[in-house]
Amino acid sequence: MFFASDNWAGAHPAINERLLRESTRFAAAYGTSELDRSIEQRFNEIFEREVAVFFVATGTAANSLALASIERPGGVVFAHSEAHVIEDECGAPDFFSGMRMIPVEGAEGKINPLNLKARMARYPQDAVHHGRAAAITLTQATEVGSIYSLDEIQVIADIAKGESLPLHMDGARFANALVGLDATPAEMTWKRGVDILSFGGTKNGCWCAEAIVFFDPDMARELPFIRKRTAQLFSKSRFIAAQFEAYLKDGLWLELAAHANAMADRMRQGLSASNSARMAWPTQSNEVFAIIPKGSAKAAGEKGAKFYDWLQPRDMQEAVSEDETLVRLVTSFATTPDDVDAFLDAIA
Amino acid sequence: MFFASDNWAGAHPAINERLLRESTRFAAAYGTSELDRSIEQRFNEIFEREVAVFFVATGTAANSLALASIERPGGVVFAHSEAHVIEDECGAPDFFSGMRMIPVEGAEGKINPLNLKARMARYPQDAVHHGRAAAITLTQATEVGSIYSLDEIQVIADIAKGESLPLHMDGARFANALVGLDATPAEMTWKRGVDILSFGGTKNGCWCAEAIVFFDPDMARELPFIRKRTAQLFSKSRFIAAQFEAYLKDGLWLELAAHANAMADRMRQGLSASNSARMAWPTQSNEVFAIIPKGSAKAAGEKGAKFYDWLQPRDMQEAVSEDETLVRLVTSFATTPDDVDAFLDAIA
Amino acid sequence: MFFASDNWAGAHPAINERLLRESTRFAAAYGTSELDRSIEQRFNEIFEREVAVFFVATGTAANSLALASIERPGGVVFAHSEAHVIEDECGAPDFFSGMRMIPVEGAEGKINPLNLKARMARYPQDAVHHGRAAAITLTQATEVGSIYSLDEIQVIADIAKGESLPLHMDGARFANALVGLDATPAEMTWKRGVDILSFGGTKNGCWCAEAIVFFDPDMARELPFIRKRTAQLFSKSRFIAAQFEAYLKDGLWLELAAHANAMADRMRQGLSASNSARMAWPTQSNEVFAIIPKGSAKAAGEKGAKFYDWLQPRDMQEAVSEDETLVRLVTSFATTPDDVDAFLDAIA
Amino acid sequence: MFFASDNWAGAHPAINERLLRESTRFAAAYGTSELDRSIEQRFNEIFEREVAVFFVATGTAANSLALASIERPGGVVFAHSEAHVIEDECGAPDFFSGMRMIPVEGAEGKINPLNLKARMARYPQDAVHHGRAAAITLTQATEVGSIYSLDEIQVIADIAKGESLPLHMDGARFANALVGLDATPAEMTWKRGVDILSFGGTKNGCWCAEAIVFFDPDMARELPFIRKRTAQLFSKSRFIAAQFEAYLKDGLWLELAAHANAMADRMRQGLSASNSARMAWPTQSNEVFAIIPKGSAKAAGEKGAKFYDWLQPRDMQEAVSEDETLVRLVTSFATTPDDVDAFLDAIA
Repeated sequence: MFFASDNWAGAHPAINERLLRESTRFAAAYGTSELDRSIEQRFNEIFEREVAVFFVATGTAANSLALASIERPGGVVFAHSEAHVIEDECGAPDFFSGMRMIPVEGAEGKINPLNLKARMARYPQDAVHHGRAAAITLTQATEVGSIYSLDEIQVIADIAKGESLPLHMDGARFANALVGLDATPAEMTWKRGVDILSFGGTKNGCWCAEAIVFFDPDMARELPFIRKRTAQLFSKSRFIAAQFEAYLKDGLWLELAAHANAMADRMRQGLSASNSARMAWPTQSNEVFAIIPKGSAKAAGEKGAKFYDWLQPRDMQEAVSEDETLVRLVTSFATTPDDVDAFLDAIA
Repeated sequence: MFFASDNWAGAHPAINERLLRESTRFAAAYGTSELDRSIEQRFNEIFEREVAVFFVATGTAANSLALASIERPGGVVFAHSEAHVIEDECGAPDFFSGMRMIPVEGAEGKINPLNLKARMARYPQDAVHHGRAAAITLTQATEVGSIYSLDEIQVIADIAKGESLPLHMDGARFANALVGLDATPAEMTWKRGVDILSFGGTKNGCWCAEAIVFFDPDMARELPFIRKRTAQLFSKSRFIAAQFEAYLKDGLWLELAAHANAMADRMRQGLSASNSARMAWPTQSNEVFAIIPKGSAKAAGEKGAKFYDWLQPRDMQEAVSEDETLVRLVTSFATTPDDVDAFLDAIA
Repeated sequence: MFFASDNWAGAHPAINERLLRESTRFAAAYGTSELDRSIEQRFNEIFEREVAVFFVATGTAANSLALASIERPGGVVFAHSEAHVIEDECGAPDFFSGMRMIPVEGAEGKINPLNLKARMARYPQDAVHHGRAAAITLTQATEVGSIYSLDEIQVIADIAKGESLPLHMDGARFANALVGLDATPAEMTWKRGVDILSFGGTKNGCWCAEAIVFFDPDMARELPFIRKRTAQLFSKSRFIAAQFEAYLKDGLWLELAAHANAMADRMRQGLSASNSARMAWPTQSNEVFAIIPKGSAKAAGEKGAKFYDWLQPRDMQEAVSEDETLVRLVTSFATTPDDVDAFLDAIA
Repeated sequence: MFFASDNWAGAHPAINERLLRESTRFAAAYGTSELDRSIEQRFNEIFEREVAVFFVATGTAANSLALASIERPGGVVFAHSEAHVIEDECGAPDFFSGMRMIPVEGAEGKINPLNLKARMARYPQDAVHHGRAAAITLTQATEVGSIYSLDEIQVIADIAKGESLPLHMDGARFANALVGLDATPAEMTWKRGVDILSFGGTKNGCWCAEAIVFFDPDMARELPFIRKRTAQLFSKSRFIAAQFEAYLKDGLWLELAAHANAMADRMRQGLSASNSARMAWPTQSNEVFAIIPKGSAKAAGEKGAKFYDWLQPRDMQEAVSEDETLVRLVTSFATTPDDVDAFLDAIA
């Protein structure tokens, strides 16, 4: 009953098998091996255009270096107030990009376009004292389990383009969103105006596979230097490449994400059918937020269930009573139906 | 015939086996799992004292964050002119620490104590304009295959202590040096005055296992924040821990380093016995620098041998003639006697 | 009719006279002259204790270097949402300190202690992912013309001390606040828990005189290096010292601030007595915020009056109708009663 | 007898007079006043083309922000080993630009073109590990009193252009060099390939007047934000403008520099005619380096002469005996013939 986070899971056998095979070979270091290059080609295919791809060690690094690559002095970056870059990265995006993150409110973890416009209006391009708009970043799937529709992405992208700003997508749970929308990688990104993507594999079956994808390779000119100077260039880079090869082969990544989402569906259905528990807000990916009696939470914990209490968002509609608690439940490629059922039993 | 670098090798079966086992479990993320903690304990045992250990993604990260942890505004760091922090890290140490690296000359890749003192004299503690001495870093084994003796380390450490400066050791090839000296980890570090160590496992059988070790845990107070802010905290950190567990178990790490060094010995002996080739300078670890006829180098390359030409150090004694070239040959845990012999044949 | 800002004024004759005298002498550079040192002594007297004083070029530099001196990796700094460090310094405090500024709401430009506590609760000392509280900064007088009472300062200071955080005061208009409260410099700072002060003279009769004052000189240990490394050490530093000497002599600074405040009083009274205009909120220093008919604003502008429209604060009580505008009127040492009366006439 | 540095002098009466006049007016802040703009126009005239000009607080700021404006991740900057950016700015250029300063040797304080090329060859544009060449900076007049001829500047510029690198000139003593060469400002800069200039007025009669001049205004696009974010935008910027106005009016700046150089000539002649003292190397600007008996130095000091001992350059030809010392003597606009003669007497 591990629902604390999808990064509590291990690695998928197919990933391991590929790593094992890689371990017996010699190959060029620092991202110059044939395998490294073949994966770059694989990303081209998946995104249906020539992209520039850079492996890094963590999702925080992917976000931070992506923003560093579009750094402008005195620039500010707009992100949802609950975005990982604001809440969970210890200021790394600010540190690497030299820019301030500006929180934008919005229901269900999504940037509200009107709020975004209102915030951006304070940061025109000549605002030497106040600071100027430099980028927008959105998270897909969001930190609270929702998914931007393709049209919702387009709306944000249009605002970005209207001000000639680049749009970054934090795709730590990219596959979960993709499966949730039943869209293609191209449709969910550059076809809707995304310029740079943090492409995460770690939460979905790899143990360390994060990449920055530039849909316009010209924008990536400085990235090789930025990455090396920030100590993110792996010497045995091909082991990241190997993970991505297995991950992207024969649609494994989509399969794993579909499984995680299905397990979340099972959880959502179980909670909805429950007498005592209910969902805090609708979610579409592999994260479920539930309001459960404190007693149930305690009981489940005693039976070994792992999950986190969650701070109530300001705009939450559903009331949480004194003897209830808001919890986050995250499923992954490794979650089994039995796990979900056991949890539902435990809180019943 | 892979002698380009020890980071061209893959990973040892025992490391893989341990990773495989880890992949089937769930466990807490971001370095908080029991496994993560047990490895910290393992480092305590190996170094015979309580240490603070932090996993990071790359050797460059280990060096850079180690220096960042002892950052002083306007500080400068003394390193051998051929040190990795000066030659091969794209300014990452400067970027993370905010300090300038000051090159110190010395024969065979080792800091010459007299040169060090002379350089340091220019950077007293009140040198607001010029900059002040803040740290010394030495590399063990060095970039050119030599090893500081315990006494040589002590001499550098005494200079550091005399000015109340911390001493950092870049141990990307720590095990190779340890085996070369037949010393204990404690003897080669804190017992001789080293304060912080970059402990590398990647070049010696792991595929990604780098750690920063503080011999005084008090000095590491800020490191958890420094590491997160610099995007170096792995979510599935326990996979680094797993590699270290296997690496440090039953002396595997020393065995692998001993093998690499033995392969280098074989190469050294072969070269010395050769008519056409000779060693450029004496080495003791898993790196050999040889002067070989250009024709031999070409022939070996055509037979599939991988190795790099090397820039001639300023203080090199041995002359390199017009039709010769200086090459670096690096052995690793994965090098076989046959590889070495094949290379010696190829250049013969 | 110059009410755009107090930094539109020139310099006071006494300051000029002192500068003139200084210009004919030779003296040691970079802050080491006898004059520089005598001013440090003068600050000791004014603050009734031994302090450490550092001249810098701008108020933004004073704030930024003050925060840089208490930098902690992953730290965050709490400031009022309208504070200069958040609104008007182009991210300089973030750039120099490496810390994120966290806005705290509060009426009349003052940090609301309950809001502060609530914000701080999200940033405990072990919050490696979210970031940790590192400092609080308050502005005295505030950006919107109000003044913290001594007790209000104490309340903020107690919150800071309760979490062992340093408290910084942005005193760009320190003298105006001091005169407004009829307090001593010591009472308004360290006696109430302020640790570091940005002491501004530029807005009050100097043309360039900003200093950072540390009430515990031990906290200033790194500042000489921080200042030089950030290019803020004047070679002819003694010309800053000369300004401060004249500024602080025989209470000139208090006299000038009292004059500026009195001119604001005259404006406040005139506005209150007016039929068409009214004050937007109560102010106590040399800034007045008024709601005036758009027609009046236009008329005044045409008659040569200089002032800025002001963005309506979220928590503003007074309503601004369609045909009205909110304006900021700042008086200074150089404002005359005739200026004020002319403005009141112009908008009548 | 003040020969310690030209920044020990005060300010010229014409500068003071202009400041005095400025102090009685109100005008727009932060560099937007008409005076600020008129000075920008004045620089256009002086340099015979449209330039972009930015005032900053210190020469260190001018150099550092100039380099920050051409920052490239992983870039390195080539400078003479005795350049101010390397020796005397506490790492500010590294801090602001994020680039490492690479020392290049050369006689008489000038970059030797062959050495420069050799150094640059190590930093090609694809050197992700080692770092890539990003800029060259030369100092005119140099730190040791010499002056690059126009052709010598051209040679360095050609090397820069050959690698598409920008060329920066540190002109802390620009006027002294200009007068020394009898060249026009255009001839000594952009006509010979200089892209960015640190234009110093402080050492030559102003008390605080430093500017960054871009000969291609397009290169200055980010500078307004860089300057504000680095706390270098004066609120009462027009007082810098006022100094420059007086400084540049009717050739005052050239007159003052000519005087300083003439005083240095008098010193050079006096030393050459002396029995005991001699010049350490030839100089052409307002700095003289002399070898004098230790007894003479002591005697002069006791009579009130101020000057600094100087560290012997590695490539110095002239021998300094045991009972001699190498001293630096700097003249300025405020030096009188009597001062020089008194000094020559004192050491006689």
